[in-house]
Amino acid sequence: MHARSVGHTDPVPGEGLATSAAQAAELAESIGFPVVLKIVSPDILHKTEAGGVIVDVRSADAARRAFETIVANAKTYQAGARIQGVQVQQMVSGSQEVIIGSDSDPVFGKLVAFGLGGVLVEVLKDVTFRLAPVSREDARGMIEGIAAAEMLRGVRGAEPVDREALAAIIQRVSDLVSDFPEIAEVDLNPVLTHGDGATAVDARIVLDFNPPPRRQQFTQDEILTSMRRIFQPKAVAVIGASAENGKIGNSVVKNIVNGGYQGKVYPVNPKADQILGIACFKSIADLPDDVDVAVFCIPAQAVAGALEELGKKGAAGVVMIPSGFAETGNVDLQRQIVEIATRHKLRILGPNIYGIYYLPQRLCATFCTPYDVKGGVALVSQSGGIGMAILGFARCTKMGVSAIVGVGNKSDIDEDDLLAFFEQDENTKCVAFHMEDLKDGKAFVEIARRVVKKKPIVVLKAGRTPFGVKAAASHTAALAGNDRVYEGVLEQAGVVRAPGLLDMLEYARALPILPVPKGESVVIITGAGGSGVLLSDAVAMNGMRLMEIPADLDAAFRTFIPPFGAAGNPIDITGGEPPATYQNTIRLGLEDDRIHALILGYWHTIITPPMVFAKLCAEVVEELREKGIDKPVVVSLAGDVEVEQAAEYLFARGIPAYPYTTERPVQVLGAKYRWARAAGLL
Amino acid sequence: MHARSVGHTDPVPGEGLATSAAQAAELAESIGFPVVLKIVSPDILHKTEAGGVIVDVRSADAARRAFETIVANAKTYQAGARIQGVQVQQMVSGSQEVIIGSDSDPVFGKLVAFGLGGVLVEVLKDVTFRLAPVSREDARGMIEGIAAAEMLRGVRGAEPVDREALAAIIQRVSDLVSDFPEIAEVDLNPVLTHGDGATAVDARIVLDFNPPPRRQQFTQDEILTSMRRIFQPKAVAVIGASAENGKIGNSVVKNIVNGGYQGKVYPVNPKADQILGIACFKSIADLPDDVDVAVFCIPAQAVAGALEELGKKGAAGVVMIPSGFAETGNVDLQRQIVEIATRHKLRILGPNIYGIYYLPQRLCATFCTPYDVKGGVALVSQSGGIGMAILGFARCTKMGVSAIVGVGNKSDIDEDDLLAFFEQDENTKCVAFHMEDLKDGKAFVEIARRVVKKKPIVVLKAGRTPFGVKAAASHTAALAGNDRVYEGVLEQAGVVRAPGLLDMLEYARALPILPVPKGESVVIITGAGGSGVLLSDAVAMNGMRLMEIPADLDAAFRTFIPPFGAAGNPIDITGGEPPATYQNTIRLGLEDDRIHALILGYWHTIITPPMVFAKLCAEVVEELREKGIDKPVVVSLAGDVEVEQAAEYLFARGIPAYPYTTERPVQVLGAKYRWARAAGLL
Repeated sequence: MHARSVGHTDPVPGEGLATSAAQAAELAESIGFPVVLKIVSPDILHKTEAGGVIVDVRSADAARRAFETIVANAKTYQAGARIQGVQVQQMVSGSQEVIIGSDSDPVFGKLVAFGLGGVLVEVLKDVTFRLAPVSREDARGMIEGIAAAEMLRGVRGAEPVDREALAAIIQRVSDLVSDFPEIAEVDLNPVLTHGDGATAVDARIVLDFNPPPRRQQFTQDEILTSMRRIFQPKAVAVIGASAENGKIGNSVVKNIVNGGYQGKVYPVNPKADQILGIACFKSIADLPDDVDVAVFCIPAQAVAGALEELGKKGAAGVVMIPSGFAETGNVDLQRQIVEIATRHKLRILGPNIYGIYYLPQRLCATFCTPYDVKGGVALVSQSGGIGMAILGFARCTKMGVSAIVGVGNKSDIDEDDLLAFFEQDENTKCVAFHMEDLKDGKAFVEIARRVVKKKPIVVLKAGRTPFGVKAAASHTAALAGNDRVYEGVLEQAGVVRAPGLLDMLEYARALPILPVPKGESVVIITGAGGSGVLLSDAVAMNGMRLMEIPADLDAAFRTFIPPFGAAGNPIDITGGEPPATYQNTIRLGLEDDRIHALILGYWHTIITPPMVFAKLCAEVVEELREKGIDKPVVVSLAGDVEVEQAAEYLFARGIPAYPYTTERPVQVLGAKYRWARAAGLL
Repeated sequence: MHARSVGHTDPVPGEGLATSAAQAAELAESIGFPVVLKIVSPDILHKTEAGGVIVDVRSADAARRAFETIVANAKTYQAGARIQGVQVQQMVSGSQEVIIGSDSDPVFGKLVAFGLGGVLVEVLKDVTFRLAPVSREDARGMIEGIAAAEMLRGVRGAEPVDREALAAIIQRVSDLVSDFPEIAEVDLNPVLTHGDGATAVDARIVLDFNPPPRRQQFTQDEILTSMRRIFQPKAVAVIGASAENGKIGNSVVKNIVNGGYQGKVYPVNPKADQILGIACFKSIADLPDDVDVAVFCIPAQAVAGALEELGKKGAAGVVMIPSGFAETGNVDLQRQIVEIATRHKLRILGPNIYGIYYLPQRLCATFCTPYDVKGGVALVSQSGGIGMAILGFARCTKMGVSAIVGVGNKSDIDEDDLLAFFEQDENTKCVAFHMEDLKDGKAFVEIARRVVKKKPIVVLKAGRTPFGVKAAASHTAALAGNDRVYEGVLEQAGVVRAPGLLDMLEYARALPILPVPKGESVVIITGAGGSGVLLSDAVAMNGMRLMEIPADLDAAFRTFIPPFGAAGNPIDITGGEPPATYQNTIRLGLEDDRIHALILGYWHTIITPPMVFAKLCAEVVEELREKGIDKPVVVSLAGDVEVEQAAEYLFARGIPAYPYTTERPVQVLGAKYRWARAAGLL
């Protein structure tokens, strides 16, 4: 179809068909100059190649001649071509071509896309996506999010295009596909945009009157009630509990008990009287009615029957450890168990998982070893291997954790269910996901946007590359999505994306302890000029800005540093300085309210050894915290091995500090900033 | 100027000026269709805006009409414009615009640039650089190196452009500016390229008959002789040696002695008889004549005098520790000491450095603490802070080191001098540089290309971003260069660029112990499907390819893994497998000569604990090494803290292994591949 309008205004160009040179001139006069003339022929698909387009025609006479040129060209191009005439169109001069579209996706539902037009952009895949409906802010983010965004701000002295008009069209397309689910695809290509307004030149719409149904939804109340009973159960049953060392059903009971869980534990095993001194139930039917959650340690084949029995007990959920479902090709068996569980309003976590830790309850319902360093981060992984890496890293760094959760095949409970719980869980200050796919992108974005206002969400999205996507497909039942789409949708959700596993772990460790920055002015104070350069690079690469230090502040810093030190930013106090120089400059950096975050570059010297620095640094930060000043401070430590102890000392006092790297401290600060911006706090 | 030719062929389009419609038609006939017509008027700069360009004219009649249209448009655009005629030009149809140019740079000399034409590319800064002269291979690398390289390979079914013709033009421009140093700038813009050939449509050349002189050069023999005496001295003097604890002149003597240096040590101090039991000299004049290198621990003001005295002793070099030169603004003092040293053929390392370690000599001529884990990597840093980070990281990871060198202000000795020594030093298997700038890009590229054939060079280039460049400028006397230029030049040099400090350190640790891969076929064997996905992502992001496993090999792997495991690549052996499964699949991966490198993803389980895995893995690798099969193997360990011991065990046996990260092992393997490609080994 050829659209006359895509919204409330009429952003399509004035135009008409001329069948003679005289008519072309007349039409051009009535439309207003400049105009563009284009051949209209069912036999000529590629108008430009046929010499069938003349742009920038600026007089009636020129229009007349252009008509004749085009017709002559067309006849030369293809002798027998049927020529219906020449289209005379208002020329949108100085304009930039963009594409605005919408598509339907089984995971995400209605997606809206924005990109520059042209083949080059196609090559560079410079397109942004969001889920519909998009807010005006989302639409602006899409326009700013393309790599070539500068094009639209006016390059080489050109007038900037009307980005608000583009945002309005994006929003209207989004409204259209949201209001009419049967619109499967929209393609406005090209949209010409210029200094004032934007014009859709061509539009294509595809309809589908049988859109796929959205998967079953629970209300937020239902979800939260179930999740609370799963994370904070009064009674836990272990189905397939075992007295035999090395069995999963033995490890789970042992970990629940040794982990210090204070609620009731009900082992179920038809052949045992007691396990680890706890009385055993012969069958699920024998269980009391107060079971909140059951941990399944039985083979896949036995699950369906056990679920039917458990359903009658009114439990809220199952921690489904066994494998042998969709991940090994048994898709039907998985579908069947979800059907049974849904019928009983039982929620399934898994199958194919290591279990669940919830530290405030001292609950370690897992076959891995217990973990007990309580803290602010909840970590969720789709893979057991990654779960073990989380556990090892946590133990090694003494990372404070609220929960560790395996979601495995995500047959039922997924990220949005967990977020409903973590949102209201006061023990959780930050949520980190290892994710190979999303089952319901729309639900995730909806709840993530809400949660992000309160606490950061970190996402490691595996399967970013074609190789990774292929590996994900062989690993789980999941169809890993196009990374560009995930990129846009995760951006829209407001989450902080981690580029790799170790990054996710480091973000999870640092974000809960870093205070929220109150502004964008970042200052580097360094004893090592070389670190200052690398830290500055890292600031730029992590989307932050070094503050331009005002003259009075510069002068104030200069009173503390040697005359050959460099004020400005980084503030290079130089390498041979005593503790007082670090102390004075850090204190000034914290006290001056124009500065919002500090990055410290320590250089190991005899004059200020690592632990002396660590102690003075922690002392100043603590002193200011007591006065109500709590800014993010991160530290890069360049020095001999003693700096490792200094890093540990600082971290334990709420100051993320790292030896041998200038990148990591800036990266975690950058992650905190990305969150603060997404939460609307900056 | 308007170029008629830029080389041996005549790649400019056929063209002529028409002053009447009839002449336009005639010219078009003689040139051949299609043609493009353009207004020629000294008053009209922007031809297209004036409606002064009509493309794709395909007949004499159309040319006639186009002439009239253009003249009419031009008159409308600007009433009084002087119109000299209309240029009729052969139309290079289906063509792509590119830019080829050359520029002169104080650090790099003649640079050649390549990029796509158009404003979008300008926005994306999609340009590659190389130093002239460029080889054909370099030129191809420039064309392949732009982000939009795919455009030139033919997009949307378009014919690929003639990249060899482009490479030829790049080479000819490079030859031109190499042969004629007075050509300061060349700008071929646009060059139109199509399926067959390439045509420079416009050219601009800027001349400069007073090009800056190249800095003083030593012959390779002179450089090597001096460097050998500096790194492998028979006698070391310490000027400003001190008996007082905490003084730099005391630390240096102490470190030389305690480090185990076996040559002669001559402390010089007018007031002391002996220092640490070694007889002291009252003055430099009193020193014996066999001094190879002197370590200066005296204030900046005393350096010039001391150099004059030392010059008479025939020493080869000075390790110039003191600061207070160019880095604090005393540019003249620095110039003066270099002048004195050059007069005496004394080479200066520094000033403003921590000193030099050369472990094969047990030489620790530095005020930092000694280091004694001998190994294959030489590390060079421009900053003292980074030097300390190198030392700490080395000690923490037991990294095997041949040398650690501070170059500080690089007043004289720089990277290319050091490379001359490390090239022929059998103790050094890999060289890693922390670099804020280059003093002589051409010299660096020349020697680096040669060294890279034998051993990898790693470069951490600080000052990549505008912030970093600014910080570098305040930190050293160096003018940090444009990162795009460094990117191209370092690529041309064949070095492996490290994105950050920790990356550089990890490359330095792993590269010397990794064997050279014999081909590009990489295979992942993993116990954790989740690690497999992340490892696959990392493979793609580090420029490697996962091998397509042939059917027979796939079948062979399948005999070892459970039926629900995934062969293909990654080979997912699944999580619950015994040691034998790891062992069999790793052995098969090593034995099959179609596979060139292995990435292992270990998942901590009770069935195969971390140290059991580490031992079996090291055993199989060792077994195959004894049979002459030595492939790169890297390991990602996902598990509880015991994996840290496993990582250490594996690393000590030549298998780079890392806990809690899927990125690092792939990154170091990728670095080895980048080097092997640059060295022409693949």
